[in-house]
Amino acid sequence: MKALLPLVLLTLLAATPAAPPTQRVRQFRQAHERELLAEFGQLVAISNVAADSAGLRRTAQFIQGMMRRRGIATELLAAPTPGVPPVVFGEVRVPGATRTVIFYAHYDGQPVNPAQWGYGLQPFRPQLATGPLDRGGQLTELPAAGQPLNPDWRLYARSASDDKAGVMAILTGYEALKASKLKPNINIKFFFEGEEERSSPHLAEILAKHKARLASDVWVICDGPVHQSGRKQVVFGARGDVNMRLTVYGPRRPLHSGHYGNWAPNPGLALARLLASMEDSTGRVRVAGFYDDVTPLSPAEKAALAQVPNLDETIRQELGFARPYGTGQTLVELLNQPSLNINGMQSANVGPAAANVIPTSAAAVLDLRLVPGNDAQRQVQKVVRHIEAQGYHVLSAEPTDAERAQYPLLVKVQAEPGYNAQRTRLDLPIARQIIAAVQTTTTDPVVVLPTMGGSLPLYVFEQQLQAQTITVPVANYDNNQHAENENIRLGNLWEGLETMAAIMQLK
Amino acid sequence: MKALLPLVLLTLLAATPAAPPTQRVRQFRQAHERELLAEFGQLVAISNVAADSAGLRRTAQFIQGMMRRRGIATELLAAPTPGVPPVVFGEVRVPGATRTVIFYAHYDGQPVNPAQWGYGLQPFRPQLATGPLDRGGQLTELPAAGQPLNPDWRLYARSASDDKAGVMAILTGYEALKASKLKPNINIKFFFEGEEERSSPHLAEILAKHKARLASDVWVICDGPVHQSGRKQVVFGARGDVNMRLTVYGPRRPLHSGHYGNWAPNPGLALARLLASMEDSTGRVRVAGFYDDVTPLSPAEKAALAQVPNLDETIRQELGFARPYGTGQTLVELLNQPSLNINGMQSANVGPAAANVIPTSAAAVLDLRLVPGNDAQRQVQKVVRHIEAQGYHVLSAEPTDAERAQYPLLVKVQAEPGYNAQRTRLDLPIARQIIAAVQTTTTDPVVVLPTMGGSLPLYVFEQQLQAQTITVPVANYDNNQHAENENIRLGNLWEGLETMAAIMQLK
Repeated sequence: MKALLPLVLLTLLAATPAAPPTQRVRQFRQAHERELLAEFGQLVAISNVAADSAGLRRTAQFIQGMMRRRGIATELLAAPTPGVPPVVFGEVRVPGATRTVIFYAHYDGQPVNPAQWGYGLQPFRPQLATGPLDRGGQLTELPAAGQPLNPDWRLYARSASDDKAGVMAILTGYEALKASKLKPNINIKFFFEGEEERSSPHLAEILAKHKARLASDVWVICDGPVHQSGRKQVVFGARGDVNMRLTVYGPRRPLHSGHYGNWAPNPGLALARLLASMEDSTGRVRVAGFYDDVTPLSPAEKAALAQVPNLDETIRQELGFARPYGTGQTLVELLNQPSLNINGMQSANVGPAAANVIPTSAAAVLDLRLVPGNDAQRQVQKVVRHIEAQGYHVLSAEPTDAERAQYPLLVKVQAEPGYNAQRTRLDLPIARQIIAAVQTTTTDPVVVLPTMGGSLPLYVFEQQLQAQTITVPVANYDNNQHAENENIRLGNLWEGLETMAAIMQLK
Repeated sequence: MKALLPLVLLTLLAATPAAPPTQRVRQFRQAHERELLAEFGQLVAISNVAADSAGLRRTAQFIQGMMRRRGIATELLAAPTPGVPPVVFGEVRVPGATRTVIFYAHYDGQPVNPAQWGYGLQPFRPQLATGPLDRGGQLTELPAAGQPLNPDWRLYARSASDDKAGVMAILTGYEALKASKLKPNINIKFFFEGEEERSSPHLAEILAKHKARLASDVWVICDGPVHQSGRKQVVFGARGDVNMRLTVYGPRRPLHSGHYGNWAPNPGLALARLLASMEDSTGRVRVAGFYDDVTPLSPAEKAALAQVPNLDETIRQELGFARPYGTGQTLVELLNQPSLNINGMQSANVGPAAANVIPTSAAAVLDLRLVPGNDAQRQVQKVVRHIEAQGYHVLSAEPTDAERAQYPLLVKVQAEPGYNAQRTRLDLPIARQIIAAVQTTTTDPVVVLPTMGGSLPLYVFEQQLQAQTITVPVANYDNNQHAENENIRLGNLWEGLETMAAIMQLK
């Protein structure tokens, strides 16, 4: 009994109308965290990969249901192109409010390969764990009713972090304000996109079509992780992103590696040689001109970078590798450079299906991250020219017989449209107000980051709407987003909704 | 009617007892080809991959049934090690015969990845086609009863060529002799192995255990393809073979390629760089000493090579690549060198499951083919030393935390035992007799090949039993063996049984 007393007192204090807003929002969450977790569990149980359009439709409908339960008027904003997952839109007008903030998150998720998920997990079967499963956490069930949920527990599922956590934090932040009799003092719009993980190919046309509905003072983008230190962060930009798919060709039909090995060219070897030519052992890209058009950081951005806590050594040890890329730069310095990542490569099979074979083709997917100054298609063209310089004839379709006969090295290159980097100025008044609002929810100093390493289609908002965007992430950094075993730390979900509620009470 | 007349006459001629043996064997096949094809279809419908031990057991039992139907006494020869697929053994003693020939084939098949099979094919659902599906053939059903089967048709299934065709040709060759009242003039033993595609790890102990039963003058190995010209061939050796599995390590958990790209090392890039270091663009292996211990060809072997028809240009054009490996050598010359083939490589995913990720590991499977003079484990060690020379710390198990902290480049290397090359002298009397027997079945000159490019555990027979081996293949060269869409040309199956029947009547 003695140990419980202070907690009871705290709860009583928090219940008084005079308690600070974050306290009252927290109390609402504490009183409802089981229902909230159950609702979130239903949300992440719905398949939301690009290939599953029915799943994306069900996800959008479920989010509309969440909005209606919170008293938010909602509708779907369709793209002019048919068949595109719609934006789930909502709006709350606040009498007397002079500013409008649009809260953005996305409801689609990265593709999944269920075979790669460990610990008996399935991407769309959410599972609680007592901590990170790769560091001693164990799968667990909900504790008995009445027991609080441990904030260090994790919920595992595709999009648990990226970015259904964003949807949940925004909608529940609003709900908690309302339930705590705290009034938002801005007009709020909700904008949940369904194609972000495909690089938002139809976002521009959606923004253009619905421009009038989307007037705002700022977009708050709720996506990505907080700082590795656990400190909240406000981020002023994102790298751009463009994917390239390469297919290298070998013999027209697969060959026995004994009867033809040494004579018929192996496309796996050709692909390995091509990829190896692109980067040195420090991760420095060897494509000509790759770093040429980078806009230098402003003095304010350099100053902000110098303030970012440096946890590189801790993270490196935790991640278990001996030497990071680069030649001594910090992680945040390197994230202000363009990058070339081999997302995936495959030639025939490894593991149980491996066979003694020369396959007909080998494939790789590249991920080019872009910083201000880079242009997505210009960056792609640099890589194409590099591939040509290795002796390749570059195709946009399967090779014809004549091309096969003529060119020893054939590669099909498919580049997505991609999008460029974007950065909002650190010194805008609304920027300072948002940093201040987030700071009301935490005693740790908020990290101000000129850019995140990840990508968001922020460039499109600027281009289509001349809009400002500021990113306020909620997920834990060690969330396996984009990979198998994605998860969210429950505490990050709860702190995230406090962050969103605070921004809705912008001073 | 007029057009059919000569065929009718031929059939009548073939029916006379004075017709040459191959004619009589052919007539038996023509009269029974539908039943034979139906039986073969049942045989290839049984899963026979190493991972499916129940399927291998059913395959062995089915073959025993085939033997019993042909009046052959059969039993299973077990390995001393429990759980190993047994050898299906059989024996026919011929009164007065002074020589014994053991006919070898294997009943296991290469692993399958059903997703890679095209044209609606499934590895263990045999399908007839009117020709090669990649060159205009169409899936088809059996023609109406009474219509002959077109010998250019194909049967598609895993092991249709490699090597259930061998089992079928041997057993049906014997059946045809018997049914045609032709007597074998040698003692015949049948030996069908179940682990050849795993590099026969228990063959040596099986041979040692059953040595007394396996006395012979020669083993006839029925495996591999005939010459690309369609000419029958007799082969005096095979390359050795050993597989190596490499796993290169990255961060302990998968990372978002945006938030960590440029900083966390990508194991896919490391693997590409490692594989690229192993071979130049002409397929020449750059591993130190790789070609050092090759035994030079004898004058007789060189002379035989010079006689082999050179179809390299035709095959190259058919396979659709512009430049073979090497620096002007012929295919058969290159097959007399050791090789290093990238059987498979994989880092994360390509295709629909590709994601913007830095994965935790990347893997490759290498296939080293060996020629006389090479030793499997010595060749593996050369590759290991090459990997070390690229800066890698080589492991035999998953890296420990301490190893992760210490070594920037970590690779796990797993090598199978493998086996060495073997070559039988071209000038043995029994060799000449077998060439002559095969020559009785065809008007085209038989191709005499000192070695095949593929591998067979012939070394083990020599080592354990001091036995001679001569390989007499039956499959078409364009059979996709070891890959998706494996197939056998029906004519090759029929000609193959004539070949086997002829050897059973060795002069």
